Amino acid sequence: MEPYVKSYREHGITTIEFFHPQSNSLPLHMLDALSQEIHYAGTHDSKVVVLQSAGNAAFCAGASFNELLAIDNEKDGLRFFSGFANVINAMRKCPKLIVGRIHGKCVGGGVGLAAAVDYAIAYTESEIKLSEFSLGIGPFVIGPAVERKIGTSAFSQLAIDSTLWRNADWAKKKGLFAEVHPSLQNMDDAVYRLSNTLSHSSQEATSELKKMFWRGTENWDTLLKEKAAISARLAMSGFTKEAIENFRQKLANKRTQRFR
Amino acid sequence: MEPYVKSYREHGITTIEFFHPQSNSLPLHMLDALSQEIHYAGTHDSKVVVLQSAGNAAFCAGASFNELLAIDNEKDGLRFFSGFANVINAMRKCPKLIVGRIHGKCVGGGVGLAAAVDYAIAYTESEIKLSEFSLGIGPFVIGPAVERKIGTSAFSQLAIDSTLWRNADWAKKKGLFAEVHPSLQNMDDAVYRLSNTLSHSSQEATSELKKMFWRGTENWDTLLKEKAAISARLAMSGFTKEAIENFRQKLANKRTQRFR
Amino acid sequence: MEPYVKSYREHGITTIEFFHPQSNSLPLHMLDALSQEIHYAGTHDSKVVVLQSAGNAAFCAGASFNELLAIDNEKDGLRFFSGFANVINAMRKCPKLIVGRIHGKCVGGGVGLAAAVDYAIAYTESEIKLSEFSLGIGPFVIGPAVERKIGTSAFSQLAIDSTLWRNADWAKKKGLFAEVHPSLQNMDDAVYRLSNTLSHSSQEATSELKKMFWRGTENWDTLLKEKAAISARLAMSGFTKEAIENFRQKLANKRTQRFR
Repeated sequence: MEPYVKSYREHGITTIEFFHPQSNSLPLHMLDALSQEIHYAGTHDSKVVVLQSAGNAAFCAGASFNELLAIDNEKDGLRFFSGFANVINAMRKCPKLIVGRIHGKCVGGGVGLAAAVDYAIAYTESEIKLSEFSLGIGPFVIGPAVERKIGTSAFSQLAIDSTLWRNADWAKKKGLFAEVHPSLQNMDDAVYRLSNTLSHSSQEATSELKKMFWRGTENWDTLLKEKAAISARLAMSGFTKEAIENFRQKLANKRTQRFR
Repeated sequence: MEPYVKSYREHGITTIEFFHPQSNSLPLHMLDALSQEIHYAGTHDSKVVVLQSAGNAAFCAGASFNELLAIDNEKDGLRFFSGFANVINAMRKCPKLIVGRIHGKCVGGGVGLAAAVDYAIAYTESEIKLSEFSLGIGPFVIGPAVERKIGTSAFSQLAIDSTLWRNADWAKKKGLFAEVHPSLQNMDDAVYRLSNTLSHSSQEATSELKKMFWRGTENWDTLLKEKAAISARLAMSGFTKEAIENFRQKLANKRTQRFR
Repeated sequence: MEPYVKSYREHGITTIEFFHPQSNSLPLHMLDALSQEIHYAGTHDSKVVVLQSAGNAAFCAGASFNELLAIDNEKDGLRFFSGFANVINAMRKCPKLIVGRIHGKCVGGGVGLAAAVDYAIAYTESEIKLSEFSLGIGPFVIGPAVERKIGTSAFSQLAIDSTLWRNADWAKKKGLFAEVHPSLQNMDDAVYRLSNTLSHSSQEATSELKKMFWRGTENWDTLLKEKAAISARLAMSGFTKEAIENFRQKLANKRTQRFR
């Protein structure tokens, strides 16, 4: 199946869905499409936004490694890492509440998406990991969004111990997920219940709530760009190129074995 | 029994107690009385303050709906919503530590009071809810106090999913309650033990502790007034009038049935 | 055994270890030595720092009571309390990640050390307490570091209820400890695993991570000095002198009995 970002509205609920065959990882053009869809939903007739991804595997594996590996200068790197910055800023500035449907694993930027929604409803198998540091970069662009939700301590733990998966229960205790459900059906029921309720809420109150929740983040347009520049610079290092190449090889070997 | 706010001092411990027959909900004149009593305790001979309410049912159901419904202009609305702003600011600026005795349910402004005390000791049946959003307003005035105690994530959850009760254990995990006790007697013992200890503490150290805990809130005199203005504006909407009227009807029907 | 602060480097891992026969409490000259060792590790060839103390009892009982009691003027008090301020600021500014090995109880300044490391790995018996307030002072110097890690609510609880030990599980839930292990061996394995991994990490990324984690603390050189001045002033009060003298007597009686 081809990668896509699509969006549809029903009863005031705008559902934005993305898909990529490589564990829902996101190349720049999909990130840009996501930013646009979120912006559109916030400025048109939607009453509430649901963010979800397709498939039964990962919710989102972060930024696309293939694309990152192909980048050979900081300027393109900055454009690449600004992709997630723009999505997070679009979510932050959207005057509607955004409900996240987190049906599976979140890595790197995927954790950033789960953190930037206003209310994340997750399936119990949704483990999380910030693997950036093991690749010689760091969760810089998504850092402010993740830290805002789970605090400095839990964010440091995730960022430092960058090879360890934390389970959905940990993510709930730390505040990343608002709800964790034992089945996909339960999760979907919860997403429906809440988004339906929110679609009948006062839109003036919604917009004021949203402002309150994001108070203190007014400088993020600038801040996240600065963070993207840090990632871009580090990504040009030999350390990162080698680490990502190794990672890809390992993944490729795994896939080969599977088909033997 | 008539509504009241009363205050008495024994061995350096000032106990401030309020009561209202409608689930300890608070009309403006009682909020003003609370502010005054807290201010008085902070500037006279008290060594520690205990905040409690009467009865065995709700700790505090928030602002008085009857009063809110009667308001027909933003100016009166601002005065009304400033009531809780003033109480929270009085608690914040009181140089004494304030221990909260939370014996039952907290709704809306009641959650604000539990958040603004320096140390909340609760009974295990004390569930909490921020119902404002379902009424077309929002927990704006109390928001900063609640968010300061339980963080952005837990506060967002409460404010968004505004019809759900969270139990005392949840409130403890998130940091709203410092202690949760299995019986009213245990709770009262804990309140006595702590307030008695604090009444023998250095008052100079107390005042410095209090300043440290509230560092960064110096602009709340202004901030909470701005929030009150937001609530006042939203409360004039048809959405809110209708929602509160429906709520009152439901309550009235419930009471009628009880007496059949 | 004599008190010491020592430091050694192996495979890029600098281990800084301190010891004092009185429950690893720290007099000023040892705090100064700690600051220097941390600064040295951050500016020389280390890739990661492990902070630990010797023995099987307390990790660190805080500042030295003997030394504090001997101080009879605010100026010397300020120098004394600045000791911990300097250590925390050295840890904060060190461009390397600091892993804490917390093998036992932490009191007062000891909690401050556990909070100021970037990743604390603890043994399950490591209880914590902020006893300052019961002595007529307060956890002012370490306050910002502790609050940053565990939040305003948990920090207030510790500081107010100053005679209560909280267990390692509480400390983990609140974010002070990243990991808690059931045996000293498990804890040591975890410290080795993580410090070894971090010693192979990109040092440029490390330095950027560190900056991100400590964003917003740029004024702590000044802030912690101001806090030290508050402690110095309060420590000169009769309340504190008497409280510490009582505490020492109790400790001395305990020791005498033990040898009967």
